Amino acid sequence: MSQPMNHQWRLKNRPVGMIDETDFTWHQEAVRSPENGEILIRSVYLSLDPTNRIWITDMPQYMEPVQVGDVMRGMAIGVVEASENENYAAGDIVSGMWGWQEYATVNGNQVTKIPSGLPVPLDAWISVLGATGMTAYFGLLDIGQPKEGETVIVSAAAGAVGSIVGQIAKLKGCRAVGLAGSEEKCNWLTDDLGFDAAVNYKTDDLHGAIKAACPNGIDINFENVGGKILDTILTQINMRARIVLCGLIANYNSDEPVPGPYHFAQLLMQRARLEGFIILDYIPQFPKAIAEMATWLAEGKIKYRVDKVQGLKEAPTAVNYLFTGRNIGKLVVQVSDLPS
Amino acid sequence: MSQPMNHQWRLKNRPVGMIDETDFTWHQEAVRSPENGEILIRSVYLSLDPTNRIWITDMPQYMEPVQVGDVMRGMAIGVVEASENENYAAGDIVSGMWGWQEYATVNGNQVTKIPSGLPVPLDAWISVLGATGMTAYFGLLDIGQPKEGETVIVSAAAGAVGSIVGQIAKLKGCRAVGLAGSEEKCNWLTDDLGFDAAVNYKTDDLHGAIKAACPNGIDINFENVGGKILDTILTQINMRARIVLCGLIANYNSDEPVPGPYHFAQLLMQRARLEGFIILDYIPQFPKAIAEMATWLAEGKIKYRVDKVQGLKEAPTAVNYLFTGRNIGKLVVQVSDLPS
Repeated sequence: MSQPMNHQWRLKNRPVGMIDETDFTWHQEAVRSPENGEILIRSVYLSLDPTNRIWITDMPQYMEPVQVGDVMRGMAIGVVEASENENYAAGDIVSGMWGWQEYATVNGNQVTKIPSGLPVPLDAWISVLGATGMTAYFGLLDIGQPKEGETVIVSAAAGAVGSIVGQIAKLKGCRAVGLAGSEEKCNWLTDDLGFDAAVNYKTDDLHGAIKAACPNGIDINFENVGGKILDTILTQINMRARIVLCGLIANYNSDEPVPGPYHFAQLLMQRARLEGFIILDYIPQFPKAIAEMATWLAEGKIKYRVDKVQGLKEAPTAVNYLFTGRNIGKLVVQVSDLPS
Repeated sequence: MSQPMNHQWRLKNRPVGMIDETDFTWHQEAVRSPENGEILIRSVYLSLDPTNRIWITDMPQYMEPVQVGDVMRGMAIGVVEASENENYAAGDIVSGMWGWQEYATVNGNQVTKIPSGLPVPLDAWISVLGATGMTAYFGLLDIGQPKEGETVIVSAAAGAVGSIVGQIAKLKGCRAVGLAGSEEKCNWLTDDLGFDAAVNYKTDDLHGAIKAACPNGIDINFENVGGKILDTILTQINMRARIVLCGLIANYNSDEPVPGPYHFAQLLMQRARLEGFIILDYIPQFPKAIAEMATWLAEGKIKYRVDKVQGLKEAPTAVNYLFTGRNIGKLVVQVSDLPS
């Protein structure tokens, strides 16, 4: 049989400000057959994440930046089409970092097999049971150390991570407050996900709105955004508050140095702890967390939503939705059909 | 016998920028005799600390601000002149927060008796065995968690806290690097106190100078200053660095909102932990720490220096030395003679 063609998005130049399709090259090449321990994967879902924007800058970061000319990096899920690796067979579902391409021919040791035993849809594995769900789980529980009765406020709460953070906070007996950018998102948080309150951060009086939503102050801030939102939160933290620094998307598209929060000194006054974390460090602990999260899913205690953009061609456009606030829940590209 | 007169500095208005003597009123009143559990104390040493500047603002802070009209708050050491409290006798040495005045008549339960058994000069109790020494001890050991071989950088290193931090870091097997504002101070750190390196932060190339002094990067930053110094340090922190947020003196005299560090995002990229602390929270643990510090003093492993300004009248002028960098070591006012 003749091999299909593979399409890729390759980085053409480092974007200035928001990503533009012209920052990438749409590259076509023949799919390469696997050899010596390799497998051929057909991508099904490609994860779009705020951190994609970091990877294509040359700022100091937690992994090597993507180099100009390389296939854009990204987490994906796909189906094994052909295998020259004894650990994989055609039809297996795998996840890995093969990036923005329709097919990938990679060594089997570069991917992880998705367990087949759990009764969850495939899109759970790129969202609530994937890196973003794990980010919510370990960030809140390990860094945030929530205690019953505390108030947890999460920014970008209608996003892939934030929406899970608030629900886990509720499961731990906390008051969960979400910040999001539209009434539709706020309603989703309170009506569907069980957040105690949601604040539209586009309100005129952000300080007053947060105060009303957090009458006992803020014990934990799960921070995805930074900028003005973090600054306002810092004025309302309680003694020994914890700031789980997960992301700073307010900064990622800036080409100017961005000042840190003006109320930085509140971290001193309130003896607060602010701690950055990167989910890659927790990979060895994923299996136990996935098992617990899957139980919560099965019991209906955690809900998730996946926002699917159709076709790899859309990836450079769609990744900006993370910064403009267009998506609700986890943003992915559906690269090809689900395996039957 | 006729009672002596007491002089006090009372807050007249909240200073704008640097403190001026006209922000206080020099008040004279008769010393009041103690009654019902009270003691009369004659101040010997008054501690001047950067946090004094915070107390006279109305910003949110870790204690109630000093109110206009009140005697200025301050930590002091003095000798009991008369006692109507069975736990105290004339001649006892006590410490407490009776503030900027020559005499104080207070309830005995508001002060702490200085142990008489240790062979240390009285000025040790207002410096290395007092709040500033304890700040160095608990900030570095409890918040910083130094491990052998790590690099510890401390700002305001020739100050009361910083000079002790570096010496404890050395005792724990770390590389100790100090930042100070003059060659004289830098020489004191390296030649007398045993710091591995000292950097004059007034150099043209602060980034390069810190890099040369910390060839393996920075694991712990004991931060007393903030502003540009903290910002430069953040660009050189190692993975899982700890920022011990002890003070932000670069901010205290500002009447404009001060931006947080521009390289704030490095806390995320390096999975760093930044934690504020206030020494008051550690008071119950002081005795054990004082015992250990006194042992180090006796063994010559820790040295300290007390910079003494003569006369309470000088307090409003001298407190600015903390911000202009004029003092070396612990800054105190000698209010009256040592007890014989």
